[in-house]
Amino acid sequence: MKTPSSLDSLIQALRCLPGVGPKSAQRIAYHLLQRDQRGAMQLAESMKNAVERIRHCGQCNTFTETEVCEVCASARRDQSLLCVVETPGDLVMMEQTQSYRGLYFVLMGRLSPLDGIGPREIHLDRLQKRLADGIVQEVILATNFTVEGEATAHYIGELAADAGLRVSRIARGLPVGGELEHVDSGTLAQALIERRSL
Amino acid sequence: MKTPSSLDSLIQALRCLPGVGPKSAQRIAYHLLQRDQRGAMQLAESMKNAVERIRHCGQCNTFTETEVCEVCASARRDQSLLCVVETPGDLVMMEQTQSYRGLYFVLMGRLSPLDGIGPREIHLDRLQKRLADGIVQEVILATNFTVEGEATAHYIGELAADAGLRVSRIARGLPVGGELEHVDSGTLAQALIERRSL
Repeated sequence: MKTPSSLDSLIQALRCLPGVGPKSAQRIAYHLLQRDQRGAMQLAESMKNAVERIRHCGQCNTFTETEVCEVCASARRDQSLLCVVETPGDLVMMEQTQSYRGLYFVLMGRLSPLDGIGPREIHLDRLQKRLADGIVQEVILATNFTVEGEATAHYIGELAADAGLRVSRIARGLPVGGELEHVDSGTLAQALIERRSL
Repeated sequence: MKTPSSLDSLIQALRCLPGVGPKSAQRIAYHLLQRDQRGAMQLAESMKNAVERIRHCGQCNTFTETEVCEVCASARRDQSLLCVVETPGDLVMMEQTQSYRGLYFVLMGRLSPLDGIGPREIHLDRLQKRLADGIVQEVILATNFTVEGEATAHYIGELAADAGLRVSRIARGLPVGGELEHVDSGTLAQALIERRSL
């Protein structure tokens, strides 16, 4: 017995979701058809809408529905500060802190030569132009503290230094409310190295 | 900064997928928009299609695009055998063995009183009518060997016995190619209890 063709197409199509193999695709398809047809219709609609409407901000590269995103278009942001992050999700996290009033550049990735992601793929040509515009004074490197994120920060740090700009990296250390007992020793070591005088 | 509204709707809508919370919904949305827009469009289309076309087979309850599914409509199946499974996925697994030529009844679930799933929710009224049709001679219980699956098998077994039918349960034991050293002791104990004389 063959699976009905529209169900089969759905199972196939679900595999474009990250981390979804043949078994979970089948499970998801059955779940939607059996328990949440309304949710599935809504999801189909939003997916189509988002793909049609979302583009990259002409300035910072984040996802937006307009030519230039809300942050870049705002007159109230400090144009001399440029924070470099890996993804639009990271930008949202930064904004949620409500303690940054500068602009952003979203790499949409990180340097990862083994995966074929070099400077071009993370738009460093555009970033370099931005660094040379005479408006940006300080670059804040807010890529992840992973091997790739650190390498990316290092690379961009050099570009910014070459352009004669101030460069900084967000701090490593204990989380707010964190206890020494529960933190990994690498983080504690960094917190010690990067201690602030009071 | 707010997330663009169509992106926000997509993230919300993705949460109808089983096991997807706010963080993974965001990650999936970014992945699709950044790396697989074509896949997303295809997925949206297949999802809409499947929801519109797929219904339950009037006889066995599995997913189908026609009034009665391929298996139930086939003249070559043994009408006297009825295999009871929990999901359409289980039916597909049974068919893949190519060693069963009878018909099916798909419960679309299992008895689970704590989740509010009783005999009505798994269509036992319809199954009971089927058992009384004078055509079915043997019921093969192929629900899962979980607590709920076993309880469901027991319940349906009694219904079938009341209807005067032969009842059987698929065997527990070692997997084909399995080694005693690597199997759990419960399975081995069952394999011993259900040993076959040669």
